[in-house]
Amino acid sequence: MMADLNAETRNRISESTIRRLSLYFRALSFLEGDEHETVSSKELAKSEKLTPAQVRKDLSFFGSFGTRGLGYPVTELRDKIARILGIDRVWRVALIGVGNIGSALVSYKEFIKQGFHIVKLFDNDQRKIGSNHKGIIVSDIKDLVKELKDDSIEIVVIAVPATVAQYLVDDVVKAGVKAILNFAPLNLRVPDDVHVRNENMAMELEYLSFAMVNDHPPRRPK
Amino acid sequence: MMADLNAETRNRISESTIRRLSLYFRALSFLEGDEHETVSSKELAKSEKLTPAQVRKDLSFFGSFGTRGLGYPVTELRDKIARILGIDRVWRVALIGVGNIGSALVSYKEFIKQGFHIVKLFDNDQRKIGSNHKGIIVSDIKDLVKELKDDSIEIVVIAVPATVAQYLVDDVVKAGVKAILNFAPLNLRVPDDVHVRNENMAMELEYLSFAMVNDHPPRRPK
Repeated sequence: MMADLNAETRNRISESTIRRLSLYFRALSFLEGDEHETVSSKELAKSEKLTPAQVRKDLSFFGSFGTRGLGYPVTELRDKIARILGIDRVWRVALIGVGNIGSALVSYKEFIKQGFHIVKLFDNDQRKIGSNHKGIIVSDIKDLVKELKDDSIEIVVIAVPATVAQYLVDDVVKAGVKAILNFAPLNLRVPDDVHVRNENMAMELEYLSFAMVNDHPPRRPK
Repeated sequence: MMADLNAETRNRISESTIRRLSLYFRALSFLEGDEHETVSSKELAKSEKLTPAQVRKDLSFFGSFGTRGLGYPVTELRDKIARILGIDRVWRVALIGVGNIGSALVSYKEFIKQGFHIVKLFDNDQRKIGSNHKGIIVSDIKDLVKELKDDSIEIVVIAVPATVAQYLVDDVVKAGVKAILNFAPLNLRVPDDVHVRNENMAMELEYLSFAMVNDHPPRRPK
């Protein structure tokens, strides 16, 4: 799995590059569905409002792809990016907090499409415990550590209020989980070997309000 | 409003800087609640897992702040960032698509906390039209252009399936709206003066899977 990238390359890959890889993966999946066999850096750049130079630079991290004048082979590049992003496999995901956002995520098709399978749900509300959401029975939060371990959960999604999030995350860490997607509006404290991503939908709106207030130019292909 | 930034500075501000400003705003709000009067770039960096140099660089875009040795005045800096991000005011937001994600967003406290007020809901489902969500009556999508105009909507959130999103966005643009937050998994085509942000929660999970597969080091303060 790790043969694609050596340690030195890995450490040079920025957060923005990873995000763009996710975008390229989507664009390539679309092109593949449309039966395109090759794609140029220019075409790939255009669909994502980037420059061709940026695309070539991002893809150069992963060795030499494509042929000058012919472009990149769509399926091969798509598969390679999937392997690099770790979405050529299934991940076992647990979701904590079956409230408004949690319930929406259980039905969120983009998760399953990319191999992120929510297989466990937890809540502390007696009315929710034991209920069925899309075929998954909601577990009691009291059994969190044991059930995360027993079910070999690899990723946990936190969709609880900020006031209880840290307390629950301490248990998630105790269960040996190394990756957390956090929807609670706070910075979680975790050990160095645990990965956390914060998702705050208001921050995307702040990008829009910034752009409008400051008359920021929308990003366009150069 | 725009006096804070001149045109040259604006164009140098990257997407990542804007995102970090949103993070600083949250950290400063927290410090203010805790009655801190000043904060150093080191402290601000630590809470966001950045370097102090990065914090100083980001804040330098907005003129000279703070005093060497004393740090930045919390409330003043917080207010200045709020003004720059355009969240020192109320924005009128409409949401299209009252499904799983749409319903969750209507109750999403982070939106209202930052001044993004959802004041209109639209759907095409006869069972939803006329129903009440948190005090807002769902409008018929047929009346989209007229109602967006009549209600002076400034930002539209798209929470419909990918298959119908472009069609609806064409109407949103027709109504004169210049900012769109898109939850549908596709790249929308809009005129150059319309800002679009795509929100895809699976992409955050892909960052985590990338990190786990490639043994990427979690970001830590240096």
